[in-house]
Amino acid sequence: MENKIYSETLILKLKEPLKLKCGKTLNNIEIAYETYGKLNENKDNAILVLHALTGDAHAAYYHKDSKKPGWWNDMIGENKAFDTSKYFIISSNILGGCKGTTGPSSINPETNKPYALDFPVITVEDMVNVQKRLIDFFGIKKLIVAGGSMGGMQALEWSIKFPDIVEKTIIIASSARLNAQSIAFNAVMRNAILTDVNFNNGNYYDKKHPESGLAIARMIGHITYLCEEAMIKKFGREFKDKPNFDFGIDFQVESYLEHQGQIFVDRFDANSYLYITKALDYYDPIKEYGSLENALKDTKSKFLIISFSTDWLFTTKQAKQMVNALVKINKDVSFVELESKCGHDAFLLEFDKQTKIIKSFLRG
Amino acid sequence: MENKIYSETLILKLKEPLKLKCGKTLNNIEIAYETYGKLNENKDNAILVLHALTGDAHAAYYHKDSKKPGWWNDMIGENKAFDTSKYFIISSNILGGCKGTTGPSSINPETNKPYALDFPVITVEDMVNVQKRLIDFFGIKKLIVAGGSMGGMQALEWSIKFPDIVEKTIIIASSARLNAQSIAFNAVMRNAILTDVNFNNGNYYDKKHPESGLAIARMIGHITYLCEEAMIKKFGREFKDKPNFDFGIDFQVESYLEHQGQIFVDRFDANSYLYITKALDYYDPIKEYGSLENALKDTKSKFLIISFSTDWLFTTKQAKQMVNALVKINKDVSFVELESKCGHDAFLLEFDKQTKIIKSFLRG
Repeated sequence: MENKIYSETLILKLKEPLKLKCGKTLNNIEIAYETYGKLNENKDNAILVLHALTGDAHAAYYHKDSKKPGWWNDMIGENKAFDTSKYFIISSNILGGCKGTTGPSSINPETNKPYALDFPVITVEDMVNVQKRLIDFFGIKKLIVAGGSMGGMQALEWSIKFPDIVEKTIIIASSARLNAQSIAFNAVMRNAILTDVNFNNGNYYDKKHPESGLAIARMIGHITYLCEEAMIKKFGREFKDKPNFDFGIDFQVESYLEHQGQIFVDRFDANSYLYITKALDYYDPIKEYGSLENALKDTKSKFLIISFSTDWLFTTKQAKQMVNALVKINKDVSFVELESKCGHDAFLLEFDKQTKIIKSFLRG
Repeated sequence: MENKIYSETLILKLKEPLKLKCGKTLNNIEIAYETYGKLNENKDNAILVLHALTGDAHAAYYHKDSKKPGWWNDMIGENKAFDTSKYFIISSNILGGCKGTTGPSSINPETNKPYALDFPVITVEDMVNVQKRLIDFFGIKKLIVAGGSMGGMQALEWSIKFPDIVEKTIIIASSARLNAQSIAFNAVMRNAILTDVNFNNGNYYDKKHPESGLAIARMIGHITYLCEEAMIKKFGREFKDKPNFDFGIDFQVESYLEHQGQIFVDRFDANSYLYITKALDYYDPIKEYGSLENALKDTKSKFLIISFSTDWLFTTKQAKQMVNALVKINKDVSFVELESKCGHDAFLLEFDKQTKIIKSFLRG
C-alpha cells in the first residue's frame, strides 16, 4: 500500500498586471499552485502539468482534509509517469477557475465584491501567460509541459508561445481547436446556466446558486466524456430498481448523471464554467496563425501526442491533425492512439498505458 | 413546379377506453390523422407512416395556413416513395403528443383541466394500440408500416404485435431499443424541463411555460440529430459576426441552436416531450420477449431496414442487430446502409436514396 504523501495548495500573488487577449487588463492576479518533487540547481527538471475544464492545482498527493488524492495522482509520484524522484512537477489552477486562481468568483479589488460577469472573458492564451509568471517566479528556463483535454490545448499553446523554454510537449486527448459539435455542447451547457432562474446575471454569490443549470451542464459533459462502450460496461439499460412509470430516476445511467450533477454543484462555480468553456471555444491557433504549420513553425519542442480510440469529444482525427502539421514542418513528434473503452475519460483512467509511453518519451 | 395539394388533419374519437401498459386505463382518446391517396375496395393498399419524437399527423401536402408542407412531403405523393396513385397513406399523431391526439395537454374529462402530469406514462406499445384503432376504423386488414427514428420503433412494434395485418415493415434510422447514451441524453433533456422554474409540476398551461428548459432539450436533440460532417458543412467554426468576448451568440452553430430552441417552444408542449422521451427509453422488445429473435418469431412481414452511415443516435450497428435477428429466424429482410453526411436527420433529408430503395421494396 502506498504511503500517503501530503501536498498543499499555495498562492502566488502577481505584482504586475496582465494584459488579456480581449484587450482588458487584470490586476491583483493570484495563482494557486502545488509542486511535487524538487527543483534541481540548474532549474532544468521542471514539468508543468495542465488541467482540464474542471480541474485544479491539486494534481497529486493528498490534502489533509480529503480522502481522495489529486486528479493525476496515478501519474505523478515516485517511479510514476511524471517521476518525482527526477522531476519537479508544478500544477496550477487556471485563470478563470474557482480553485484559488483568480476567476469570476474572486473579489474585484475595484468593488470589493466578486467579479461575477465583470470578470473579463479570458482565453487559453491568457491562462498560459499567467502560468508563465509562475514559471518565471521559480526561475525556470527549460520546461516540459503536459496536459489532457483542455490541458493539452494549454500545452500546445506553451510550445507555440514560448519556444525557447519548452523542450518537451505532451498533448493527451486533445485538439488544436474544438469542432462545431463541441462548441455546440458548450453553448447548450452555458445556456442551461444562463437561463437558470437563480443565475441573476452572475450575481448569485450571496444567494441561491444556479445549481440546476450547472448540474445540467455537468450531466451533458459527462455524456461526452464517456462512450458507448463505457456506457454499456457501466450501465447498459439496467434499471436502478424497476420501471417507475413516472419522471423520477429509472435507469442506472440516470442515477449516475444525477449524482454527478449534484456533487459538481458543491465543488464548482457556475460563472467559472461559463468562462472556461468560452475559452475552449475561442482557442484556435489555426485561425490565429493562418495554419497549424505556421503556428508551430518556431517551436523547438519534441512532441508526444496521445489519443484514445473511443474518445469522441477529442478524436484521433483531431490528434492526427496536429501530428500531420508537425510532420509536415519536420518537427520531432511521436503519436500513439491507445485502445481504450473509457472514451474521453481515458486520460484520467488509463494510467498503465500512458505511463509506459510518457516514461519512454521523457527518457528519449 | 409542384402544384400545391392541400390536406387537413381530422379527428377520430375512440368510444372504447384503452388499457395501457402501465396498468391504467385512458378514456375519451382522440386521434388526429391525415390521409393521402385513396383506399381501394379491397382495403389492401394502405401504408401507415409513423412519425418521430416531435412529428405530427401532417406528413404530406400543405395546410391552408402554412407555407411549409408536411414533414415527409418529399416521400409521400404521386410517384414518390409512398406513391399516392397506388397507395392509401395514413399518418396520425402519436398518443402522448400535442398535435391533436390525446396527450398531457389534453383536457382530462374527470377534472375539465389539462391532464399535465396526471396523464399516465405511455409506451410505444400504447401508441401502436391507438393506431390500431384508427386502422380498424378504416376496416383495413392488410397494412404496410413505415417510420424513421421513433417511427421505426413503432413500425417494429406493429410487426410484432399485429403479425396477421402487417405485410411489409420499413424501419429507417432506428433501433429495437435505445442504448444507454440515448437514455442519458433523454434524461438530461427531461431534467432541463423538470427543473425549469416555470415547470410548476407540469401545471403551466395557464401560466408562463417552461420555455428555457424545453429549448435546452431541443438544442441537445439537434446536436444528436446532426453529425460532425453535417456540422462542418453547416457551420464549421464560423463566427456569426466576430468574437464578442461575452456570453451572447458567438458562433454560427450557437445561433442555429438558439433559433431551433426558440421556434420549438412555440410549437411543442414540454409535458409531451417528457412523456414521449420516456416512451422511447422504455421500449425494449429484447427484454420484453427475452430476445429479439423471440420477439420477431411470429412476424409475417417482409422487412426493409435502412440506416445512415453518419447517424450516431441510431447507428448502423443497432440496425444490424435487428437485421441479424431476422436473418437468424429466416425472415425476409433487406438491409441498406446509406452513405450520408446528414447524421440522424438523413431520414428527413435524403429523399432520392430512400425513394429508390423503398420503391423497389414495395414493388418486390
